[in-house]
Amino acid sequence: MSNKILKVGVFTSGGDAPGMNAAIRAVARSCAYYKLECVGIMRGYEGMIEGDIAPLDARAVGNILQRGGTVLKSARSKEFRTPEGRKKAHDHLKKHNIDALVAIGGDGTFTGLHKFYEEYQVPSILIPGTIDNDLTGTDYTIGYDTATNTAVEAIDKIRDTAMSHNRLFFIEVMGRHSGYIAIHAGIAGGAASVVIPEETMSFEDLYKILGEGEDTSKKSNLVVVAEGSKIGDAHALAKKVAERSSYFDIKVTVLGHLQRGGSPTYFDRVLASRMGVAAIEGLLNGENGVMVGIKDNNMVYSSFESVIGKHHEIDAESMRIAKILSI
Amino acid sequence: MSNKILKVGVFTSGGDAPGMNAAIRAVARSCAYYKLECVGIMRGYEGMIEGDIAPLDARAVGNILQRGGTVLKSARSKEFRTPEGRKKAHDHLKKHNIDALVAIGGDGTFTGLHKFYEEYQVPSILIPGTIDNDLTGTDYTIGYDTATNTAVEAIDKIRDTAMSHNRLFFIEVMGRHSGYIAIHAGIAGGAASVVIPEETMSFEDLYKILGEGEDTSKKSNLVVVAEGSKIGDAHALAKKVAERSSYFDIKVTVLGHLQRGGSPTYFDRVLASRMGVAAIEGLLNGENGVMVGIKDNNMVYSSFESVIGKHHEIDAESMRIAKILSI
Amino acid sequence: MSNKILKVGVFTSGGDAPGMNAAIRAVARSCAYYKLECVGIMRGYEGMIEGDIAPLDARAVGNILQRGGTVLKSARSKEFRTPEGRKKAHDHLKKHNIDALVAIGGDGTFTGLHKFYEEYQVPSILIPGTIDNDLTGTDYTIGYDTATNTAVEAIDKIRDTAMSHNRLFFIEVMGRHSGYIAIHAGIAGGAASVVIPEETMSFEDLYKILGEGEDTSKKSNLVVVAEGSKIGDAHALAKKVAERSSYFDIKVTVLGHLQRGGSPTYFDRVLASRMGVAAIEGLLNGENGVMVGIKDNNMVYSSFESVIGKHHEIDAESMRIAKILSI
Amino acid sequence: MSNKILKVGVFTSGGDAPGMNAAIRAVARSCAYYKLECVGIMRGYEGMIEGDIAPLDARAVGNILQRGGTVLKSARSKEFRTPEGRKKAHDHLKKHNIDALVAIGGDGTFTGLHKFYEEYQVPSILIPGTIDNDLTGTDYTIGYDTATNTAVEAIDKIRDTAMSHNRLFFIEVMGRHSGYIAIHAGIAGGAASVVIPEETMSFEDLYKILGEGEDTSKKSNLVVVAEGSKIGDAHALAKKVAERSSYFDIKVTVLGHLQRGGSPTYFDRVLASRMGVAAIEGLLNGENGVMVGIKDNNMVYSSFESVIGKHHEIDAESMRIAKILSI
Repeated sequence: MSNKILKVGVFTSGGDAPGMNAAIRAVARSCAYYKLECVGIMRGYEGMIEGDIAPLDARAVGNILQRGGTVLKSARSKEFRTPEGRKKAHDHLKKHNIDALVAIGGDGTFTGLHKFYEEYQVPSILIPGTIDNDLTGTDYTIGYDTATNTAVEAIDKIRDTAMSHNRLFFIEVMGRHSGYIAIHAGIAGGAASVVIPEETMSFEDLYKILGEGEDTSKKSNLVVVAEGSKIGDAHALAKKVAERSSYFDIKVTVLGHLQRGGSPTYFDRVLASRMGVAAIEGLLNGENGVMVGIKDNNMVYSSFESVIGKHHEIDAESMRIAKILSI
Repeated sequence: MSNKILKVGVFTSGGDAPGMNAAIRAVARSCAYYKLECVGIMRGYEGMIEGDIAPLDARAVGNILQRGGTVLKSARSKEFRTPEGRKKAHDHLKKHNIDALVAIGGDGTFTGLHKFYEEYQVPSILIPGTIDNDLTGTDYTIGYDTATNTAVEAIDKIRDTAMSHNRLFFIEVMGRHSGYIAIHAGIAGGAASVVIPEETMSFEDLYKILGEGEDTSKKSNLVVVAEGSKIGDAHALAKKVAERSSYFDIKVTVLGHLQRGGSPTYFDRVLASRMGVAAIEGLLNGENGVMVGIKDNNMVYSSFESVIGKHHEIDAESMRIAKILSI
Repeated sequence: MSNKILKVGVFTSGGDAPGMNAAIRAVARSCAYYKLECVGIMRGYEGMIEGDIAPLDARAVGNILQRGGTVLKSARSKEFRTPEGRKKAHDHLKKHNIDALVAIGGDGTFTGLHKFYEEYQVPSILIPGTIDNDLTGTDYTIGYDTATNTAVEAIDKIRDTAMSHNRLFFIEVMGRHSGYIAIHAGIAGGAASVVIPEETMSFEDLYKILGEGEDTSKKSNLVVVAEGSKIGDAHALAKKVAERSSYFDIKVTVLGHLQRGGSPTYFDRVLASRMGVAAIEGLLNGENGVMVGIKDNNMVYSSFESVIGKHHEIDAESMRIAKILSI
Repeated sequence: MSNKILKVGVFTSGGDAPGMNAAIRAVARSCAYYKLECVGIMRGYEGMIEGDIAPLDARAVGNILQRGGTVLKSARSKEFRTPEGRKKAHDHLKKHNIDALVAIGGDGTFTGLHKFYEEYQVPSILIPGTIDNDLTGTDYTIGYDTATNTAVEAIDKIRDTAMSHNRLFFIEVMGRHSGYIAIHAGIAGGAASVVIPEETMSFEDLYKILGEGEDTSKKSNLVVVAEGSKIGDAHALAKKVAERSSYFDIKVTVLGHLQRGGSPTYFDRVLASRMGVAAIEGLLNGENGVMVGIKDNNMVYSSFESVIGKHHEIDAESMRIAKILSI
């Protein structure tokens, strides 16, 4: 960019994730540190289209670091998918003298920004904030650590009940396209099996694992199922098992949206803090049209093209570990 | 009882509740304190029928106070409903020289014990352990405080997301016949409305409350629904609202079995501890065929007849408070 | 009061307690419900003296129910102890047309308000907010339930370490004049002994209890000590035991201010909600110069004279339970 | 090793850390998976010297994954520092036909094992379990993630109180030689400053940072101090600031041993699970005299010589981030 950046607009978009506030704070404070102006754009692209924009100085982001959700709120915007919507948004950015954008969100957010960037070339940086950890270009997304811990705490509670009653529980966790929460929550929760979108386990394979429990002293079992399971969601799997055998006393719990909320873990706060700083420092160093990521504990920048629409592959190692430990 | 009590059998039955282990510990330690023998009967009436019985001295119950579930496990027993099953159970009690029983559970447990008591006159005391707080004869049942806090923590997380997105959430909590968890979790969670089995709110009433939100600056709303709602469960209510208006961005979460587990609160641990001591001291003082309860912070004993099959009424005061505060 | 109440000022004062925000919200929303104006006075008597006063409508208290601390902040005010200070405060109340006061705090707060009330007769109601549960006129104060749970969660963590190492831990909890947190956290935490200000246990008594552990298989022990212990604080007791015997591997943890913070439990939120409503309804019904309290689950009002400077006695029953269960 | 490994002994030693039980479980289950026998050695080197050794099959480690502390208990052994003590230990290993050792602990544990390994050449693998994250050869040690979250949760609670009262808090966290917990808890807790053993900040530097707060609207401040601070511990620093200025209302909290306990996070459970599997697979693949570590998310093995007595350096990046964000 030849033009100097003086004023940055930050926003959150798509599903909220714990740690988004820590990222917003880091962006605002880094701007203050580097003597840039910072404004917050409310409700993602909706607020950009409506001009719902307010100053965000270092003090305005005090005491939000530890909070779930996003103080800038989030929304999905149909209008931003139209050229007219994006035009309105750009007009507001110009009116507010916003030189650069920092977007915090997931793949949907990125797709929208990519289009906007191609049309208007506003210097833009993405920060990956989504509990699903389904983005390539970064080892971890903001919110994943917290959501997985939330899932594990729920599983621990269910285990108390499962063990008291010798029951089989199907526990559904978030992850429409990605088994990250499921596989790690499954290992950490001591699941008998984990069903994820990425894997090709058949229902027969699953049933066999549960059946093996019949012969051992293991009477209670937990199965963790990712939303995006290819062989049926938690309710469907429970039904199939019940149809096959009356041996099991089966229950189902779908954790749902509580996985999105809650105070972020130290990991997500530190990750969000680092990414927020890296976004502003990146902008100042001429980075543009990129996503900030963490790779092997270093901040890296990847081009929009290299991350958008790509899938973060699940590690085979985790699948192997889950299997060995459920013996 | 003319015969002196020398050996007590304790068991848990029905749905597990946080604090059951604290009650088991208190029974075992009180026995030790008063120089009685104590044995644990596994899996409720099932273990009594099978003779699955083991000594429970003061040390055997070390380090269980803080754990959810029940170390004695729990089960529902069909066989105990037959005279033959109860005969087998009684034979095992005789064989083990068990002079008295302490049962920890809810209404189902009590019904079984009542029948058994009428047939065999084994000195028996009930301890109310159920998250539902649906028993008369006591202000609180063991597990209720913990379960309500678990529900509130989940609601807090969902609120983060609701506020970030201006959403309407229907959150279903446990309580098939009782709105206790719902009403208190609703007040504590700042719900716009609470739907409970005891109340005669119509769907129109509910819709009106939500609709009022349209006119105010209150954009996100939570509705807490007890399992036993008479106007539809959380999914049904969400569907009805969606059919009526597209204004709301609606989501549903059913908290389910995670409400049963988890480490008990101080309140449930102290309550369970007091009830366990009161059960043994009651037996030693000739109490028999009674349930231990807490009333206005005092331990009281109520006859089986006065508590079994009765319903703990919801306090009208709580309903009133919920309404005022959701203004 | 002959004059009708139209505008209420609410403030928090003294040490903060979890649930104060829930009480503030309940006061503000009850005012809205009953068509009264409500203003918040910042930093207790300091803000009253300085005129740091702002409107508090139903929406202004949104999303604070679940937060620790107090959004109105708190402070101790030396100036309010002088007639000049109180004069200034009264002038500000008049200037803002404040007809009545609701004070949320503990004994120190009450003493200040009592004096002010005697001088200026501003209709006033107290809400007991302090983690210590050391006020008479109410079974529970706002914050006590949360603080005790916080203490118990910390004790649970320390128990993990104690049991892994066969150690003796002295854990100091808050309570300068009151052993309430200590005794209930001690029972719930499975303490070998509890040292509280109210009791006359000598160091020899305590040492004997610990010594008894030497002969049993109980290798790790926890002793919960209230701040106001008459036989030495946690560090002092640890030192005395170490001087007497090298048998024990002794550690000390002073929980300190973390007991004041954190999101309130459902119990404290509901209690605070009920008390806030009762304060406003009390004012409307002519209650004045009283503290709101909860007795046997009912809201009651007690005169300033009957509660200020009094002490909430610890129940002997709890001491007895603690002793039986640490066998 | 030319001799085939048939039986593995696992033990924990030194300070306990959350996740040690998950590592024990992973070792025992991996042994079962690979058809090796596994035994648990109680209380570290003490149990080895005394022959306190028991079988540890796949079922014996059920339901421990989520628990803090260590079921094998831990102790420091003076006798193992003598040749006679190590001789006794080796005799017991021989008597039990133990072919290989897996030790879970920190630098002290490793030093002991190194000596033993040099003398007796028993195939040995170390698993780094310590909350301090002070070992080289691994990016993370087991327990660090949980301990840092525990510290941050405590800081969040203290922040509620600090903000309600405009106070300055000094919060001391664990870390005698390492500032890892402090720096990450400091960033995540929004600390105004972090004092760690590795850094050369003077008291004047610290005082200046706090003083800068006087001029801003930032009235409450938190300073996180690592145990091993070179410029005074939390109490000493508070005293120095109080001597310099009466502006601050200063409080101190020393978190202490509660940082060691608690249920491990998903991260620590997964890390421990992976390391436990890697230890057994390493032994089977001829790894010996090495520590298992995680580097850039891969399992690696480092020789005893390369890790013992070395220090894991704090990353300069974190110090920089902490500074920018406390603006």
